[in-house]
Amino acid sequence: MANKYVYTFGGGKAEGKAQMKNLLGGKGANLAEMSNLGIPVPAGFTISTEVCTYFYDHKRQYPPELTQQIDDAMAKVEKVMGRKFNDLEHPLLVSVRSGARVSMPGMMDTVLNLGINDEIVKVIEKDNPRAAWDCYRRFIQMYGDVVLDIRPRTKSEVDPFESVIEKIKKRRGVTFDVELELDDLKELVSEFKKLVKQRTKKPFPQNPRDQLWGAIGAVIESWHNERAKVYRRINKIPEEWGTAVNVQAMVFGNFGDDCATGVGFSRNPSNGDKNLYGEYLINAQGEDVVAGIRTPLDFADLQKNNPKIYKELETIVRKLEKHYKDMQDVEFTIEHGRLWMLQTRNGKRTGFATCRIAVDMVKEKLVTEKDALTRLIPDANALDQLLKPVFDPASIEHAKKEGRHLASGLAAGPGAACGRVVFHADDAAAMAAKGNHVILVRHETSPEDIGGMEVADGILTALGGQTSHAALVARQMGKVCVAGCSDLSVNYGTKTAIFKGRKVRQGEYISLNGFLGDVYEGEIKVMPSEVKQGLFGTAAQRKGASQSKTFQAYTQLMKWADKYRTMNVRANADQPDQAELAVAYGAEGIGLCRTEHMFFGGDRIKAVQEMILANDKEGREKALAKLLPMQRSDFFGILKAMGSRPVTIRLLDPPLHEFLPTNHKEIVELSKDIGQPAKTLKAKLQSLKEFNPMLGHRGCRLGVVFPEIYLMQARAIIEAALDVQKKHKIKVKPEIMIPLVGHWKELNFLRGEIEKLIDEIKDAKKLKIQIGTMIELPRAAVTADEIAAVADFFSFGTNDLTQTTFGLSRDDAGKFLPHYVQNGILPEDPFVSIDSNGVGQLVRMGTEKGRSVNDKLKVGICGEHGGDPASIHFCQTVGLNYVSCSPPRLSVARLAAAQAALIAEAAK
Amino acid sequence: MANKYVYTFGGGKAEGKAQMKNLLGGKGANLAEMSNLGIPVPAGFTISTEVCTYFYDHKRQYPPELTQQIDDAMAKVEKVMGRKFNDLEHPLLVSVRSGARVSMPGMMDTVLNLGINDEIVKVIEKDNPRAAWDCYRRFIQMYGDVVLDIRPRTKSEVDPFESVIEKIKKRRGVTFDVELELDDLKELVSEFKKLVKQRTKKPFPQNPRDQLWGAIGAVIESWHNERAKVYRRINKIPEEWGTAVNVQAMVFGNFGDDCATGVGFSRNPSNGDKNLYGEYLINAQGEDVVAGIRTPLDFADLQKNNPKIYKELETIVRKLEKHYKDMQDVEFTIEHGRLWMLQTRNGKRTGFATCRIAVDMVKEKLVTEKDALTRLIPDANALDQLLKPVFDPASIEHAKKEGRHLASGLAAGPGAACGRVVFHADDAAAMAAKGNHVILVRHETSPEDIGGMEVADGILTALGGQTSHAALVARQMGKVCVAGCSDLSVNYGTKTAIFKGRKVRQGEYISLNGFLGDVYEGEIKVMPSEVKQGLFGTAAQRKGASQSKTFQAYTQLMKWADKYRTMNVRANADQPDQAELAVAYGAEGIGLCRTEHMFFGGDRIKAVQEMILANDKEGREKALAKLLPMQRSDFFGILKAMGSRPVTIRLLDPPLHEFLPTNHKEIVELSKDIGQPAKTLKAKLQSLKEFNPMLGHRGCRLGVVFPEIYLMQARAIIEAALDVQKKHKIKVKPEIMIPLVGHWKELNFLRGEIEKLIDEIKDAKKLKIQIGTMIELPRAAVTADEIAAVADFFSFGTNDLTQTTFGLSRDDAGKFLPHYVQNGILPEDPFVSIDSNGVGQLVRMGTEKGRSVNDKLKVGICGEHGGDPASIHFCQTVGLNYVSCSPPRLSVARLAAAQAALIAEAAK
Repeated sequence: MANKYVYTFGGGKAEGKAQMKNLLGGKGANLAEMSNLGIPVPAGFTISTEVCTYFYDHKRQYPPELTQQIDDAMAKVEKVMGRKFNDLEHPLLVSVRSGARVSMPGMMDTVLNLGINDEIVKVIEKDNPRAAWDCYRRFIQMYGDVVLDIRPRTKSEVDPFESVIEKIKKRRGVTFDVELELDDLKELVSEFKKLVKQRTKKPFPQNPRDQLWGAIGAVIESWHNERAKVYRRINKIPEEWGTAVNVQAMVFGNFGDDCATGVGFSRNPSNGDKNLYGEYLINAQGEDVVAGIRTPLDFADLQKNNPKIYKELETIVRKLEKHYKDMQDVEFTIEHGRLWMLQTRNGKRTGFATCRIAVDMVKEKLVTEKDALTRLIPDANALDQLLKPVFDPASIEHAKKEGRHLASGLAAGPGAACGRVVFHADDAAAMAAKGNHVILVRHETSPEDIGGMEVADGILTALGGQTSHAALVARQMGKVCVAGCSDLSVNYGTKTAIFKGRKVRQGEYISLNGFLGDVYEGEIKVMPSEVKQGLFGTAAQRKGASQSKTFQAYTQLMKWADKYRTMNVRANADQPDQAELAVAYGAEGIGLCRTEHMFFGGDRIKAVQEMILANDKEGREKALAKLLPMQRSDFFGILKAMGSRPVTIRLLDPPLHEFLPTNHKEIVELSKDIGQPAKTLKAKLQSLKEFNPMLGHRGCRLGVVFPEIYLMQARAIIEAALDVQKKHKIKVKPEIMIPLVGHWKELNFLRGEIEKLIDEIKDAKKLKIQIGTMIELPRAAVTADEIAAVADFFSFGTNDLTQTTFGLSRDDAGKFLPHYVQNGILPEDPFVSIDSNGVGQLVRMGTEKGRSVNDKLKVGICGEHGGDPASIHFCQTVGLNYVSCSPPRLSVARLAAAQAALIAEAAK
Repeated sequence: MANKYVYTFGGGKAEGKAQMKNLLGGKGANLAEMSNLGIPVPAGFTISTEVCTYFYDHKRQYPPELTQQIDDAMAKVEKVMGRKFNDLEHPLLVSVRSGARVSMPGMMDTVLNLGINDEIVKVIEKDNPRAAWDCYRRFIQMYGDVVLDIRPRTKSEVDPFESVIEKIKKRRGVTFDVELELDDLKELVSEFKKLVKQRTKKPFPQNPRDQLWGAIGAVIESWHNERAKVYRRINKIPEEWGTAVNVQAMVFGNFGDDCATGVGFSRNPSNGDKNLYGEYLINAQGEDVVAGIRTPLDFADLQKNNPKIYKELETIVRKLEKHYKDMQDVEFTIEHGRLWMLQTRNGKRTGFATCRIAVDMVKEKLVTEKDALTRLIPDANALDQLLKPVFDPASIEHAKKEGRHLASGLAAGPGAACGRVVFHADDAAAMAAKGNHVILVRHETSPEDIGGMEVADGILTALGGQTSHAALVARQMGKVCVAGCSDLSVNYGTKTAIFKGRKVRQGEYISLNGFLGDVYEGEIKVMPSEVKQGLFGTAAQRKGASQSKTFQAYTQLMKWADKYRTMNVRANADQPDQAELAVAYGAEGIGLCRTEHMFFGGDRIKAVQEMILANDKEGREKALAKLLPMQRSDFFGILKAMGSRPVTIRLLDPPLHEFLPTNHKEIVELSKDIGQPAKTLKAKLQSLKEFNPMLGHRGCRLGVVFPEIYLMQARAIIEAALDVQKKHKIKVKPEIMIPLVGHWKELNFLRGEIEKLIDEIKDAKKLKIQIGTMIELPRAAVTADEIAAVADFFSFGTNDLTQTTFGLSRDDAGKFLPHYVQNGILPEDPFVSIDSNGVGQLVRMGTEKGRSVNDKLKVGICGEHGGDPASIHFCQTVGLNYVSCSPPRLSVARLAAAQAALIAEAAK
């Protein structure tokens, strides 16, 4: 028996089906599937990928059986459609499209209207003369381009077909193609044929069979063109896959007022409502919708104008939704009152709709909870949108109309914010104290701006990428942030910001759209999201939110996520209010409580500076004694807020010079405060300066050289824990984390010092405080077995681990990382999503080696990656105990953890 | 049969031997070995380590057999020595010493003269009253300290025994103990006994058996004291090893003029001559030599005064040398005309003597070539001394007498140098151009100082450690360097250096001792070493050197080293003269030719700056076109010098801002040169500034963003190679190395660009240029399998790999790394010797993964570690193809590679 190379579909049945993607390509398999469902799909056939493979294996020869099989298939199509290919009575036109397993740029895409020629156009003309000639001229142009390769020969040349069209349009004084009249179209056909003759030295093929074989050949050849090859290499798509070729009967939406073309969704893609949603154009083709000359009608009109067709469409769409178990995005054409479906696929939708639809479909028993969590919400980030403040729709419309858009930058912290412009942290504090909303505008931010960022509603910087200081801190704080706004120039002296010449002074209003990175002049009204109202609003807001379908969907999803996930989810939080936020968002503990942010507050920074500038241990201890009660009260608040949940507190990490002033005025002031001459102070500051602060005297290196600093912090933790326990009868679980350990002896030494302290303080031993370390240096990962012998837990600090593993400074990467991502050298910013092949290997190695010597070792991750869904999936495969992220990312993290667990379960 | 716990020695035989170290400890095994050789060793016995183990396993009880075995052993000792323990006729005194397998600080060390008491002292008194009482008082003091634990109770308290002595000396108006007279000594004994009574509440033990058991117990208990435990933990010495106890008959060198004590070497430890070499004191004890009150006599005197004893000593020493097959360092005592050997061990010696002795002993057929290379030169660094210039001995003596020592710093580049002080690179060049020797004095150095360092004889900096820029560059250039001289303060404005108040002006002479880190005022004459004269001197010098035993030994050792080593040895060299030097030192290729140093020369830096500051690719290419001929001529010189040896050329690595000026004046000048306003220029400079330049836009990241830079360099290499090949008929082997690759796509992209260039240039393909990469980022090591698929070779850049693996900036580590090493957190500076457990794991992983996909992959190392013996041993275990180091380190590297190969062979 001969091999089967051709698979027909149409007329309520098909030889293929959805599962035959490898053989039929994505498109072919889908068309077959729709036919099998009895959906009215224009009939056609798919030439399988085996033909492509055969072709290249046999010196570009087709299998001998192919011609007959195509002829047989065409006969079936003709029968279903009631038309004949190459026929002068009821001519059948077809489209020819490529169709690999995955969609692939660079492949030949589509030839429409194939089968028309000088004779046949005259037959079709009887139906609609203008449409017939428009078909013909479009066919020659498309075929000329993709099959005959008639394209611009130099970069500066315009498309040769387009230049013919332009000439005629110019002569006729019209702007759009649709304005051309019948005679113009006929002239176009004639000119196009001349162009083909001139470029190919042959007349345009008149025989539809020749046209067909030409198009089939072009699809198969395009599998091996340069762009396709490059794409395959980069995306690791095997050459052997090959492409299928789809030949399908044409149907026309532009042959009269009983014709139409449209697109639609089975549910509202913006809010998830279960209503058919879409638009259509009468007597038009798909590309007319794109051209945007005529305003499409909506489905309410269709229902009114043609209730029968609407009803039919609704039935089909519901059937498709039920079949594919997902919201569908369809394309259809009405040809002389008959509905044809051209395509269906899972529809794109907003985060709001994603969540709503997932929950609704479970309720409708269309999908299971597990399906809803994984398949219907492929990207957990969708949840993020539900939490962010938004602009009042009327207010933003108004601003746009008034032309108040100033500039765009990176959308570095989602949400909407509006406030008065300030340029310094202290101005921000002063202005906010008066009850103003403020937007902190900086060239770039540094740890000294923390206070200002805290009181600001939004942060705008001229420099910095997605992982700049501003972006990172803003995301942790849940602040709206636009970073790297290159059209912004900041003058701190005159306290003005200039956006492409437009000046904004301190105190004037601007508004930031952190979803999109836009900056607007003046005020735009901001509203909290329904989910936030539901979680943190006033009683009235909560009640209102409880009626909101979005909020209901959110809480339902979180319930399911918590049910299925196996990893714990913790938050990175440094202060009691952040800890409370974390709990509301479902945190099961704190994975990273940074103590350095606590060092920047008003009085504290002075004591910190005094400590740093002390000439000996005695001086340091004197200053540390001042800090102790402050730190203790910080920890008291956090531990109380977290109750009996574990709280991992990281001891001081950044280099000491970060706490010192840099400008003359501040130095002079400080010199008065601590009673040292400014000159001495400057020399000291100079001596603390570092070439590469990232790799300098920081982390546990501070603790090793100045154990008194860490011991003060440890004492504050212990005493605070004992206080909370006594006053609030809560069994608190503080954990002490030593940062930047590279060698087990560092941790061993510091652990010893802290254990001595625990022995000294009454009842401290009963707290059973765990002592562990960040794994954030490659050396720590490769020697994790040594380190685990003296650690109770590991927490992968993947921000720093990425920096050191790649040898890449987060602060400096902005100069070349975008170029890398744009040019495909790196698939994405490794600070956003973990580099599983490189950094990830070290995480895996560190975990395995650590557990090999300490089977009780608790292992988590507390870098920014802890809130990134792809990274969370990776963490599941490594078998981590928890992920920790900024509080507003917790919803995403909970969902992503559930998805990861379900995928792991399914893979078993 | 009872277990044997006690092993006797003496009288020409022993129950133990050298191989029984585990049982008898190092000392005990050695004493047994000497006895077996028939060497006159005072008789004694060793209580085995099993007793110690038993003791701790049995609740601090001794094995029941022990008492009898000790009594039996003591009887044997008494018989050999002709004296009796606890005897009033011929009393035997003994010493008691600990003796673990390895010498261990913190253990009880020694009690001498044990067995004396109030009765026995009176017997000994008959021989020599003063000596007898001196024995007794020393015994009480030692026993009181180490057995009875009578020590200062607070840090400020002085030793209680010493305070008694001081009191008497003060009363008697004398300075030294030896000035005390008989009555004083008797009074001391009496006072000491009172002290013991007062502190222990018991009288001083008079029974010699009690004394003996007390001392044995103290030795065994000291195995578990705090210091010993800490030392064992740090050095990973198992607790189960235990310590042995050695009990040995005392002999006395201070009982008359027919008594003496001395130390000697079997060969001259400073130059290796095969003459007995040593000194002795008549009527004295070992510690009298140390006290330095009397001037010892040398062996010529001994030969004259007592030819019989001298002959006997010579025979013994030669016998020991022959037995131990190494130069011996012995201690001996003459008691009433009878020679006793107390100790023998392999002697310490200078690098010069090390090499001479190793070669001589092979010639004498005492050892094999392999033995000479490995055992007799345990540290290949010994060779280094042979190459360094030295001060003329008379001249340095003179300078010291005149008090011209100014300050001390780190010995960062060995050798001696003298020249006029300069503070700037251009002043250095100008002054050197006039024929002056110059010493470049800087607060610290940076790449801009390279020109100045090149013309200087020595470099002196106030800041920086062993791996500072100054130290690294100086060592590569083979310059004398003293770094981190904290007593130096540099004033660039007034061009003066101040050393603790002493001012030295530009143009005045200073002299540097880079062996020791000393700085002297004024001129001290410098001479090249004999080896350097032999390798690079004038014809006359070479002839002179060929007669020199040092030079002969050097060339012989190099010949043997090359015979046995399996790894290739290459040099790091950037310029033709360095390449020539490398060849003379035996380099088999260049492992690292850095191209950035070439960018700093006069005209070049301007073109480089123009290139960096260009606003577009066109501007960059214009500037690059100026650089091309210069780079080509650089490479021409190097390739020609290296002939057919491989030359690995690394493309531009440092961040571009390193090539730009930083001060206002230079910026203004540059702005004129390139015709851009100074303001624009400053903004541009600001934009190029980096927070962490080490992790910034450097290495292949420059090549990826600005491929034109790398392509200019590649073209220069290719064209130079073709030129050399054509003009000199040499089959050159250039290799192009891409730095700082972290992801295989970086290398893949750049390799593709360079291969396109090779295709373009006529005949370039025939050069078969290999293209490879540095592995200097952890990510490169863990993904080496991906990278190796597109690399012809790997070269581990372990300087940067250490920085990123540890997260440790070499430039900033000075602030805490010394503290780490001093406190045992790190065993040593990981930039000096490779951290085999951490960084080394990545080197091994990178090599194995790389070879797993590319079995032709050539793998080497080109960090500073390439010249460090311990690191070279590590490289051998990993199986690297070559090591590469600075030219002056090549001798050391060749030897170390041979040692590593021989050790690996022996381990098979």
